[in-house]
Amino acid sequence: MRYVRFLNQGQPVLGVVTAEGVRVLGAESLESLLARGVDLTTHGAQANGALMEIAEDAYLPLMAHPTKIVCVGLNYADHTKESPYAQPTYPTLFPRWNSSLTAHNQPLIRPRISDTLDYEGEMAVVLKSGGRHIRKEDALEHVAGYALFNEGSVRDYQFISPQWTVGKNFDDTGAFGPVLVTADELPAGGKGLLLETRVNGKVVQSANTDDMLFDVATIISTLSEAVTLEAGDVIVSGTPAGVGFGMNPKVYLKAGDIVEVSIEGIGKLVNPVVDEA
Amino acid sequence: MRYVRFLNQGQPVLGVVTAEGVRVLGAESLESLLARGVDLTTHGAQANGALMEIAEDAYLPLMAHPTKIVCVGLNYADHTKESPYAQPTYPTLFPRWNSSLTAHNQPLIRPRISDTLDYEGEMAVVLKSGGRHIRKEDALEHVAGYALFNEGSVRDYQFISPQWTVGKNFDDTGAFGPVLVTADELPAGGKGLLLETRVNGKVVQSANTDDMLFDVATIISTLSEAVTLEAGDVIVSGTPAGVGFGMNPKVYLKAGDIVEVSIEGIGKLVNPVVDEA
Repeated sequence: MRYVRFLNQGQPVLGVVTAEGVRVLGAESLESLLARGVDLTTHGAQANGALMEIAEDAYLPLMAHPTKIVCVGLNYADHTKESPYAQPTYPTLFPRWNSSLTAHNQPLIRPRISDTLDYEGEMAVVLKSGGRHIRKEDALEHVAGYALFNEGSVRDYQFISPQWTVGKNFDDTGAFGPVLVTADELPAGGKGLLLETRVNGKVVQSANTDDMLFDVATIISTLSEAVTLEAGDVIVSGTPAGVGFGMNPKVYLKAGDIVEVSIEGIGKLVNPVVDEA
Repeated sequence: MRYVRFLNQGQPVLGVVTAEGVRVLGAESLESLLARGVDLTTHGAQANGALMEIAEDAYLPLMAHPTKIVCVGLNYADHTKESPYAQPTYPTLFPRWNSSLTAHNQPLIRPRISDTLDYEGEMAVVLKSGGRHIRKEDALEHVAGYALFNEGSVRDYQFISPQWTVGKNFDDTGAFGPVLVTADELPAGGKGLLLETRVNGKVVQSANTDDMLFDVATIISTLSEAVTLEAGDVIVSGTPAGVGFGMNPKVYLKAGDIVEVSIEGIGKLVNPVVDEA
């Protein structure tokens, strides 16, 4: 099933996307449904509102308050090659805070203190259950579904200190959505899917999710050696080569650019770039 | 005023600490009070329960679900000297997730996959209001109060990748509490306070909060250039020299050790070390 979060008559609602259109399911968030252990592969069948279209500017971040957002850096070998880092032997993990999230069709904001905003097209993984010391062979049982993420990065701040945190957490730089596709509708682990990012229509990133150095099951299992995972956690699984920072000369986003992230079977996430007021 | 979170007859409650003892205030968490904009410098006067003592094993993390926890690394020059890093020119920020929190008198857990658990005595800063582009001269108006934090770090995992995240987020390694002291009861910015850490009674860290490279107002103002801060955010302001990782040879925590973090005017945070089951 496919879920989408948007404003309906001014109120945040969750909807179910069908071939005919969208039906409103209710006000409860995905975070809340996941915390209650609701089975998202069937729950959406309860959506019995009229078929509707979502206004272009009505999309909300797929989840506004995940329990945590764990990003994986350097998870595609060709992207690591365009970075100053060695190929990792352990997942390179960093956080995004919820304050950085934005939605499909909403602007990525280029902050007033930097002109180095860059895109990173990625596959997000939403957990439906948590745990500690999860075995790799059991890890995918914890996945609710998959979504698109543009892990927008302000490069000069990413490298202003030994930790990337601030450059990965500017307001309105993390686009998340528009839809969650439940795991039963995609290959196990979200494998074998074409991931593409376009800027102003031109393909800048093109890779297969098979190319991840640490696949989804490995990330879940490895992280759970240290951390108790929870239903509603989001893992943003890394970006392939082709970011602006890796070009020669470097090319950064500017106001008026349109960035599209797409993954086969999941859909498309579109964001215009706007300068901070 | 001084607030404490603990189990009272099996239920989590917030109490007010007075010279005579503790009075129960109610079930509402500090996070919730802060989100509602309640003035903590006066609110505790409503506590009208009987005076009581808190059982030794009844303390809870001061806040179990902060909106975010922002840690500052390399924020004391003498600690940076014992690390492999250069003195920073910008705060080195990293996250702790709520899943890593533990309470006063509860164990710091040495994980089964590492023998490099280390202490870091720190001052935590709790925000009562948020905002973006907060001026340094206004920053301390956003502080609700101060608390103790033992920012327990699993060193081999901290350095297993270019980002420290996993080594800073093992379950039950971040001790937070026991009390929040409201800002009106301490010097502005929590300045000029003696911070000490003891292991088995021996002083291993001793510094003054004046020695921070980036003081509390600077951290708030700088972070808000990028991130919209929120009421309930927690900033963990860094540790001085004297961690076990900086000793020659390195000395790590082992089961049976007792770690105490104290700051003048705030109190003492005590944690025994226990091996993961």
